[in-house]
Amino acid sequence: MKSVITISRQYGSGGRFIAKKLAEKLGIPYYDNELISLAAKESGYSEAIFEKAEQLSTHSFLYSLSMFGSPDGIYGLPLADKVFLAQTDIIKKCAEKGPCVIVGRCSDYVLKEYDNVINFFIYSDSESKINRAVKYYGINKEKAASELRNKDKKRAAYYNYYTTQRWGDAENYHLSLNSDAVGIDATVDILESFVNAYENKPVS
Amino acid sequence: MKSVITISRQYGSGGRFIAKKLAEKLGIPYYDNELISLAAKESGYSEAIFEKAEQLSTHSFLYSLSMFGSPDGIYGLPLADKVFLAQTDIIKKCAEKGPCVIVGRCSDYVLKEYDNVINFFIYSDSESKINRAVKYYGINKEKAASELRNKDKKRAAYYNYYTTQRWGDAENYHLSLNSDAVGIDATVDILESFVNAYENKPVS
Repeated sequence: MKSVITISRQYGSGGRFIAKKLAEKLGIPYYDNELISLAAKESGYSEAIFEKAEQLSTHSFLYSLSMFGSPDGIYGLPLADKVFLAQTDIIKKCAEKGPCVIVGRCSDYVLKEYDNVINFFIYSDSESKINRAVKYYGINKEKAASELRNKDKKRAAYYNYYTTQRWGDAENYHLSLNSDAVGIDATVDILESFVNAYENKPVS
Repeated sequence: MKSVITISRQYGSGGRFIAKKLAEKLGIPYYDNELISLAAKESGYSEAIFEKAEQLSTHSFLYSLSMFGSPDGIYGLPLADKVFLAQTDIIKKCAEKGPCVIVGRCSDYVLKEYDNVINFFIYSDSESKINRAVKYYGINKEKAASELRNKDKKRAAYYNYYTTQRWGDAENYHLSLNSDAVGIDATVDILESFVNAYENKPVS
């Protein structure tokens, strides 16, 4: 039985790149920011609003305002929650279509009740995250350390708000891995071995 | 360069067995409860006292008593801390002797400043932990669930007390893995692949 794979990752850990390479090796679709676009189209929101909503959800004061101060929405839900629900729908639709790799968006939690879902978490050391952020995202080297902390804080806040779990707890995932320890290519190989072992696990 | 490998594990996850098999495959020594014996011999304590001390350290009230109420020890340290320091010495000596697999005892944290140390964390689903505890440790099936929770609570309390980290945080380890997802043998294979990739990582 082929699996749906979710990948959570720290900013700058190479997790998105690893996810893409893994999907290529396994010959299955890869969903990332495309998810937002899909969700945006289906729900009628613009992508900018989706991004805005995610930012809001990580600032508790602004989030509270959006929680209690927006009576204009469908079902009376605050903006960020409507966006989250729309994304949840899309993630489930992707998973139901067949094997794929889905990055972020609490997809491990969203698909918790589904069979044949493998959850990975990719992180790495601060120094290499800074180097990657400077090299690939054009972030200023001096500001990189605090920028990285902020990005991961937001991811953690988003995850901790929308799930009953804690971002980065090993137990949320089937396998968690420091990509610096072995490098990007070996990480992809190890994840692929894990997927194969999972799909061919002997019945005990 | 060959590595020292530390394995932290949930009670009943098969982690100790995995550690032993990994050491066999890699042809390197394996240290587990033997550590206690070694430490006991070197420090002059009896093994029973070592075990007693570890239990104490996880009950905050009793621990407080041992903290402030035992003026009879060397250097005036409480019993549990003296035991921990003695174990720390032994772990470092084992690591300095050469490649090996060390299970538990905060060894990942104790060897934090050492080069070429790989830290693994093994956990698994509640049901299979219960089955393993009943099968291998002869624990009563009805009591197994609470017994397991207590054992892991103690391990977490011990780790969280003696380190500045949180037991089970993915970031403490180079790789964390749910042994149920792929089974014991495939887990050993994946850990071995990781060790090989770590030791042969291309210089970036």
